[in-house]
Amino acid sequence: MENVFSDTYFMKKALQEAEMAFEKGEIPVGAVIVIDNRIIARAHNLTELLNDVTAHAEMQAITAASNFLGGKYLQNCTLYVTLEPCQMCAGALYWSQISKIVYGARDEERGCIQLKTKLHPKTIMVGGILADEASQLLKRFFIEKRNLN
Amino acid sequence: MENVFSDTYFMKKALQEAEMAFEKGEIPVGAVIVIDNRIIARAHNLTELLNDVTAHAEMQAITAASNFLGGKYLQNCTLYVTLEPCQMCAGALYWSQISKIVYGARDEERGCIQLKTKLHPKTIMVGGILADEASQLLKRFFIEKRNLN
Repeated sequence: MENVFSDTYFMKKALQEAEMAFEKGEIPVGAVIVIDNRIIARAHNLTELLNDVTAHAEMQAITAASNFLGGKYLQNCTLYVTLEPCQMCAGALYWSQISKIVYGARDEERGCIQLKTKLHPKTIMVGGILADEASQLLKRFFIEKRNLN
Repeated sequence: MENVFSDTYFMKKALQEAEMAFEKGEIPVGAVIVIDNRIIARAHNLTELLNDVTAHAEMQAITAASNFLGGKYLQNCTLYVTLEPCQMCAGALYWSQISKIVYGARDEERGCIQLKTKLHPKTIMVGGILADEASQLLKRFFIEKRNLN
């Protein structure tokens, strides 16, 4: 029997969060954090609504997951995020010692890979899961935004 | 007449915040954000109390300053922080487009200089203001912590 709790399964949940951001006029990025196949945090980008550059999906998800676990280290947790983390989020993930990061689309310009942000030695990162869906949503957002202005 | 609103003046305020962190058993790092010689945000590290790796002094100060200004960009603002920002905080400062960062002590191991975190082209950074005071406070914290355990 196929394992329903695949990376694609959880990335779809992160994409649902990204769609919520889209509907609020936020750059559509979503994230979930999972432990033992259970989602313990869901978040989407809220930088516009909160007027706060720190309100990326990943940052809120890290805070929510730590709150749920009652501890600041996210061992045995996996973050699913629709867009490759930026320096800030990768820096936060470094401190969290999270076990795994799974991202969707690459951010060639301001992502942590291009900018060589240091990850924790305990963290592994894989990318490209539902990348097209994540990047199509971002493209659609910027096209609609441009047409409105 | 000497300008009372020097970098040293505001760094002393950041050090007072660091001392508050110390008293709470937090790694003693403090920050203030200043615009037109006026302090609009004060914060200190609260990662232990909040169980949250994102609760660095700088992150809280950015959120508070944005809240005060009603906008997410910190143009014409200066951050004073007792310790050189880490990747996460420097990454957040990148997004904020803050005009100036003034830090106290260097963080040779996990600071943004060593780890080459990208700052915004609009941002200038200077260091070494009351560096000894900031680093003595950190050293005292880790000695006391070691003696307690």
